[in-house]
Amino acid sequence: MNDSYLNFVNSPFGARLARSFGLPKPEVLRRYRADEPEFGGLVAIGAGREPHLLDPLADLVASIGVTSVAHESAGLWMPLAHRHGLMTGRFEPADSGSPARLAALIFDASGIEDSSQLGPLHAFFHDTLRSLGQCGRIVVLGRPPEGCASPRQWTAQRALEGLTRSLGKEARRGITANLVYVEQGAEHRVEATLRFFLSPRSAYVSGQVVRIAASGSDIATDGNSPVPPFDWKQPLAGRRAVVTGAARGIGASIANVLAAEGAHVIGIDIPSARDALEATMRQLNGTSLAFDIAAPEAPAQIAAALDDQGVDIVVHNAGITKDKTIAKMTGAIWQSVIDINLSAQERIDDALLAAGILRDGGRIIGVSSISGIAGNLGQTNYATSKAGVIGRVQSMAPLLRARGITINAVAPGFIETQMTARMPLTIREAGRRMNSLAQGGLPVDVAQTIAWLAHPGSAGISGQVVRVCGQSLIGA
Amino acid sequence: MNDSYLNFVNSPFGARLARSFGLPKPEVLRRYRADEPEFGGLVAIGAGREPHLLDPLADLVASIGVTSVAHESAGLWMPLAHRHGLMTGRFEPADSGSPARLAALIFDASGIEDSSQLGPLHAFFHDTLRSLGQCGRIVVLGRPPEGCASPRQWTAQRALEGLTRSLGKEARRGITANLVYVEQGAEHRVEATLRFFLSPRSAYVSGQVVRIAASGSDIATDGNSPVPPFDWKQPLAGRRAVVTGAARGIGASIANVLAAEGAHVIGIDIPSARDALEATMRQLNGTSLAFDIAAPEAPAQIAAALDDQGVDIVVHNAGITKDKTIAKMTGAIWQSVIDINLSAQERIDDALLAAGILRDGGRIIGVSSISGIAGNLGQTNYATSKAGVIGRVQSMAPLLRARGITINAVAPGFIETQMTARMPLTIREAGRRMNSLAQGGLPVDVAQTIAWLAHPGSAGISGQVVRVCGQSLIGA
Repeated sequence: MNDSYLNFVNSPFGARLARSFGLPKPEVLRRYRADEPEFGGLVAIGAGREPHLLDPLADLVASIGVTSVAHESAGLWMPLAHRHGLMTGRFEPADSGSPARLAALIFDASGIEDSSQLGPLHAFFHDTLRSLGQCGRIVVLGRPPEGCASPRQWTAQRALEGLTRSLGKEARRGITANLVYVEQGAEHRVEATLRFFLSPRSAYVSGQVVRIAASGSDIATDGNSPVPPFDWKQPLAGRRAVVTGAARGIGASIANVLAAEGAHVIGIDIPSARDALEATMRQLNGTSLAFDIAAPEAPAQIAAALDDQGVDIVVHNAGITKDKTIAKMTGAIWQSVIDINLSAQERIDDALLAAGILRDGGRIIGVSSISGIAGNLGQTNYATSKAGVIGRVQSMAPLLRARGITINAVAPGFIETQMTARMPLTIREAGRRMNSLAQGGLPVDVAQTIAWLAHPGSAGISGQVVRVCGQSLIGA
Repeated sequence: MNDSYLNFVNSPFGARLARSFGLPKPEVLRRYRADEPEFGGLVAIGAGREPHLLDPLADLVASIGVTSVAHESAGLWMPLAHRHGLMTGRFEPADSGSPARLAALIFDASGIEDSSQLGPLHAFFHDTLRSLGQCGRIVVLGRPPEGCASPRQWTAQRALEGLTRSLGKEARRGITANLVYVEQGAEHRVEATLRFFLSPRSAYVSGQVVRIAASGSDIATDGNSPVPPFDWKQPLAGRRAVVTGAARGIGASIANVLAAEGAHVIGIDIPSARDALEATMRQLNGTSLAFDIAAPEAPAQIAAALDDQGVDIVVHNAGITKDKTIAKMTGAIWQSVIDINLSAQERIDDALLAAGILRDGGRIIGVSSISGIAGNLGQTNYATSKAGVIGRVQSMAPLLRARGITINAVAPGFIETQMTARMPLTIREAGRRMNSLAQGGLPVDVAQTIAWLAHPGSAGISGQVVRVCGQSLIGA
């Protein structure tokens, strides 16, 4: 649970030592705190030809209350910002006087239709990247390639992935880089997602590609408005959220974050963890349900317990690992991991959906893993179950669209937990450092990502997998 | 070009030393040689419930002339194999007497419809993996998840990715593991792909997922049969193949392999490489075209040179790297990499397609890179261009389907070339060892993968990206 190297190299003496010996110096990541402003500082805006997203960007800049500066590639920004009543200025390169420390770089690439038009991306990041401060944010905006009218446009939009991921690897200093593809007609749905990627809430999410679709319904399940303005402080007020495996660790962190955003949390965990579950739920005025989710009767029991008031958010966090090479793995160990991590999730969802307990406009979030994406030595059972979770969200998303229900997965990388604390030192250090942020994530990083997907403003995001891995090298 | 560590630990003294010190011992990979049998040894067959692909598998086993043994999960195999006139037996676990050394493990998971039915996969690989010999092959067969009738089936099929990739990481000893999703109705198209994955030709391809579609046309451009039996020794006989960047390195290797399979190769390279290009082409009775593909007039020149006889296969191999962090990268360097690696490819394809020079049933193969998938430090330009190549094949595939033309990309990982030989030692060693085979690939590994995609039997594969990376950790 304690990255002592990170702490050491960020102490005055350790920093000096690291500098002398050329050791890597992971940044202490800035994370969200309710008692600190979430947004601040200067945001530089860049754009390619005919950008389509400057209007929603101006709304966002106004909403989060930051000051923008326009790079020369975004000539349209200044007049537009003025129309929106925003203070704005021109970006001045760092070498002309004292460098402006930027908090974020946002590039609107939505109008790029050909690979020959990618030059402004270079110009913008060439000019601005050095001025981006510690734990800064890079967001590139484009159009979903698969929805583009021509192969040339599809190709140019798809190229943005290579750029964004390279920027994430170059930037260091706690900076994240993410790519958001906004479908035509989904412009009104960008704010929740851009807020997340610009916020310290996304401290450990980098190198990700997210699509915001125009399809699906903006149904709200309660008094909240289905489209902005949301209550950004308590976006989940009035919503009921089920979290499995909520007694401890990542599950408890998810429960805490959802409760902090206003949800009433119903925590589920196995009967043997009842005391810890009740202690966790008591702190956040939640409800405890001590059920073994893998038991045959569990889906009906959970449905019965929720039937009265229904539920808006279901987070399938409960999971186990039982690592062995397959030659040494018994059938029972294989089966229990598949059953708890995957099949139980299917059975519970199906029971809640069949009985109409999960309300229209609801959210389902499964916890996958980078092992489920890339496979892992000694985890044939775990990786199979976590790859299945990805199949689950991909397969259910189209079926739930008409009801305004979204279903997505998060895929954690190396997260500092009791489990990772027990790993052998060298494996633990490799897992921790082999990512663009050179450190492990915290349970709260997973929880914040889930809270973003659970947000009423995330209606355009479904069937997707978001890694919470600091842009881990471990891939597919 | 020379992995001296690999050579050393495979010498008698080096192997002893590696054993004493617990050093990693990468396997010397078995590669295809025209003077050695391509297939041999025992193949173990396993299956889940209601397997749909045993008939084409029996055809394959007969065609490549190997002996099969049936695992107890594949009860249907023995009678079916007998009907196909095959010698076959039962798989005996290694611990009951002297272990049979298996050459390949093939599991037909196509009938699995629910996550609760995944158990036979565990049983099969649990029992057989230890009996698989050096440079053995693992192939898992399934149905494309996105085409499954129910979410449960989709989920279970998608779960196979996590299993296959974990097996690739566990197996070591030069063993590869790949997953082939066969669409219903595409059963007649499996042979070319299964031959590739079972052959030493795929020595450095592991952890990959390939889909074989039933759609698209099996049009042949010449006297070859559009469906099996193909001439497996000279599958490209009578075909004309253009290879850009063919003078040296990977391009020359591609030209050699395509020529060895019977194609007439037209090599293109820049005028300054004319001598090397002509020397390479002379050896394989090919044709040299000294053009700068990035020149504005190049598409028309290439089209004119090919107009007479047309072309069947286009391999876009030419590419450059000009690495710099983006803050230090000039606009000219950015632009030249995007233009040569991506835009030129678009212009040439479009010219060949507009003039009808690329014939029906043709093949286009672009060379991408794992940098284009995962991004890379110092390669914003290169990664952008190589991500664009992926967009190119994804966007063009549906448009070319009716003409029977396929378009795919290969994404090399660390390949031993003059370029990688010039890398600093630590970066080179990290790139070489950070994959399941603990070594770099050779140019011929890329070339063989391209030859498989160019094969007349690969009609069902289009719009896909196949990594040639030894299951590199470097992912997305």
